[in-house]
Amino acid sequence: MATAADLDAMRRAIALAARGLGSTSPNPVVGCVITDASGRPVGEGFHQRAGGPHAEIHALRDAGERACGGTAYVTLEPCNHTGRTGPCAQALAEAGIARVVYAVADPNPGAAGGADTLRAAGVQVEQGLLADEAEAGNTAWLTSVRRGRPYVLWKYAATLDGRIAAADGTSRWISSPESRADVHRLRAEADAVVVGSGTARADDPHLAVRGIDGAVQPLRVVVDTDATAVKPGARVLDDAAPTLIAVADDAETGLPDVVRLPRDGRGLSVPALLDALFERGVRSVLLEGGPTLAGSFVAAGAVDAVVGYLAPVLLGEGRTALADAGITTITEALRLDVVETARIGTDLRITATPKER
Amino acid sequence: MATAADLDAMRRAIALAARGLGSTSPNPVVGCVITDASGRPVGEGFHQRAGGPHAEIHALRDAGERACGGTAYVTLEPCNHTGRTGPCAQALAEAGIARVVYAVADPNPGAAGGADTLRAAGVQVEQGLLADEAEAGNTAWLTSVRRGRPYVLWKYAATLDGRIAAADGTSRWISSPESRADVHRLRAEADAVVVGSGTARADDPHLAVRGIDGAVQPLRVVVDTDATAVKPGARVLDDAAPTLIAVADDAETGLPDVVRLPRDGRGLSVPALLDALFERGVRSVLLEGGPTLAGSFVAAGAVDAVVGYLAPVLLGEGRTALADAGITTITEALRLDVVETARIGTDLRITATPKER
Repeated sequence: MATAADLDAMRRAIALAARGLGSTSPNPVVGCVITDASGRPVGEGFHQRAGGPHAEIHALRDAGERACGGTAYVTLEPCNHTGRTGPCAQALAEAGIARVVYAVADPNPGAAGGADTLRAAGVQVEQGLLADEAEAGNTAWLTSVRRGRPYVLWKYAATLDGRIAAADGTSRWISSPESRADVHRLRAEADAVVVGSGTARADDPHLAVRGIDGAVQPLRVVVDTDATAVKPGARVLDDAAPTLIAVADDAETGLPDVVRLPRDGRGLSVPALLDALFERGVRSVLLEGGPTLAGSFVAAGAVDAVVGYLAPVLLGEGRTALADAGITTITEALRLDVVETARIGTDLRITATPKER
Repeated sequence: MATAADLDAMRRAIALAARGLGSTSPNPVVGCVITDASGRPVGEGFHQRAGGPHAEIHALRDAGERACGGTAYVTLEPCNHTGRTGPCAQALAEAGIARVVYAVADPNPGAAGGADTLRAAGVQVEQGLLADEAEAGNTAWLTSVRRGRPYVLWKYAATLDGRIAAADGTSRWISSPESRADVHRLRAEADAVVVGSGTARADDPHLAVRGIDGAVQPLRVVVDTDATAVKPGARVLDDAAPTLIAVADDAETGLPDVVRLPRDGRGLSVPALLDALFERGVRSVLLEGGPTLAGSFVAAGAVDAVVGYLAPVLLGEGRTALADAGITTITEALRLDVVETARIGTDLRITATPKER
């Protein structure tokens, strides 16, 4: 039975882990709290960036000698491998930690085994405390490990009748300032932000994070199949964040930072795009549209969650949020579970995840 | 200052009034609570149907002699005129009521003046207690009096991307069973249910209320401009509820219960349709679509509230909830205020009202 102190410590570790969202890829976010032999919190830390110390190391440094005989609460099973940093399981044992409580097992074959190492060193090990909450905080990374491709969150902003622009193409502004600020939070939590050529052509978007202190800029990705949408001088090509332009194998372009991918239908292969991003260390993608690219992702079964900002506006005409997704009849519809609804300014934000099929 | 007892009595009167929704037109819904001289509730009633006793009369009968020296709480100013029933102001005074508290003044020129009559009879009169709540409970009727046309509530059920059917026209079912049951409640509260020819042709809808005990069936109205959609044997022509088919002046039809109206663009004149319904005693309309007719209503400025059932489903193609509403650019968009959001089964119900323009 977990005590109230156990729960408090793990909750704090989960909150700490969330601070790393958007800056740790290809690593997971991890938080750690250490209590001394009497149960008093004496150290805490979280994984801040790939290549930097793991959460456990930060927490051990924070605790110092007070860790001896104490308990370490970690959101993910302590690693067992020597990467750019040493194995955490060993560090915990050497610091004299008597008990390790972790929420979620490490699904990464290369890193797993930390629990066994700890037990072999005589440390008491418990798994599963607040596992659902810890897993929810690490959804993107866990999904990317399980699927072998980046986690994809599709974000759209539309009217109540599903429009993203009026008949003449004007769209500023459909959603509220609060919703637009919320999107910058989503960008800051993602490793890459992806848009299609239609959006690049219509909006000349910047796609970098604004207004969030300490945010790590995501990789800006434009899917520009025929290399016709992104021109020199485009805002996405400035130095505010790294940028990658995905074009077809046979497209002609003079732009730098281009990745060439196979065509699929009228666009690029979505699996090939996700593979290319995964290879570059991208574990989470914020797909910002437009409707054609979103349709291709839905058709490829490559949308893991949807965040819709619905503005209380009616238009009656204009582009819709989602175009052809390969669905022709109602039984093929992509059905989702609503995970959360919230009022954001004057808008309604709906978060939903596809039902397992 | 209203006492807690005053507030309790008026809240009860407002709740009683709501029981009449859908069955009192062309009259408003009204509730009444009577307390005796010591403040104890001794009678209550509500207006049940046009031609029947008003709320005050029901409550006076319920209270009997205990009304003498007491207070009457009424959601609407007691009427002053002799229609199919006698003036309530006079009945209250004759029963010895010492004090009348009403929430909302009667905007109907023919019925107003009840407060003056009561004062002239020596009754203490107070106005405005819980006026906002009482007004909200009578929105449809009050709007119809102020605008001289029926109140229009547009209801739609769509996917998150705004679709009401898949590419091949299939739509059963997009919304949840709970949402479909909720629509029967809306029908029961309305005087008329209106659909267009496209919906009549595609769905052969029945439009009557099912599953609600004691519901008064609404008038079923099909806007069938060219008299081509509703054929003999259509479900809407059965005897479950009255039906009216609105056709163009020049349309050829052999159907009974037809009203002929002037054309406007590709359809019928919305103001002419609403005038015709108002003349028939309709004070509230539930507009159930489809997208073309809803677009005509929006374009005519004739939508007073919107109820959207949003299902967590994505389609990417198919008909949208709202078609051409005469809006070509973003500055012309119909902007609304979200009044309420609720989870209905697996769906999200959004209620919104147009901002004043």
